[in-house]
Amino acid sequence: ADIQAGKSKSATCAACHGTNGIAMIPMYPNLAGQKEQYLVLQLKAFRDGTRQNMVMSPMAKPLSDEDIANLAAYYASLDPAGK
Amino acid sequence: ADIQAGKSKSATCAACHGTNGIAMIPMYPNLAGQKEQYLVLQLKAFRDGTRQNMVMSPMAKPLSDEDIANLAAYYASLDPAGK
Repeated sequence: ADIQAGKSKSATCAACHGTNGIAMIPMYPNLAGQKEQYLVLQLKAFRDGTRQNMVMSPMAKPLSDEDIANLAAYYASLDPAGK
Repeated sequence: ADIQAGKSKSATCAACHGTNGIAMIPMYPNLAGQKEQYLVLQLKAFRDGTRQNMVMSPMAKPLSDEDIANLAAYYASLDPAGK
C-alpha cells in the first residue's frame, strides 16, 4: 500500500478524524495507529453496506480497493497518541 | 461511569483487544484511548443489532447500559500507545 497516496486521499477524512487521526468529534473514532487490516475491513463494510452509517456509507462508496488499502496503511502508520 | 468496574468487566474483552487495549489480532481494533462516546455507540449497536459481527454481537448482548458506560470509560482511559 502507498502511505503517501493514502495521506492525500485522507483530506476529506481529516474534517472528522483529525489531521493527525485523532477525531475532532467524540462520536467519531480515532484512527491514528489503528490496526490496518481492521480499517480495511471497516471501509469495505461501509462500501458494501454490511456496516451502515449515514456519514461513512457515502464516504466509502466511491473508494477503490487501492484507495482503501492506502488509507488504511496511512492511518495505521500514524502515532496513536496523535503526535 | 466507573472505570474500575469497567476494568473488571473487560476480562473477557482482553483476549482479543489486549490487556492494555491494543488488539492481539490484526482484524480486531485497538480500543486503548478510543473516544468514549464512540465506544458506547458501537457496543449499543452490537447489542441492538444495527451493527453485526459474529464475535461481538454475542459479547454485547448481555451487557447493561451501565456495563457499556463502564467499559467505554475504561478503554477510553487507557494510553493509546498501550503503555
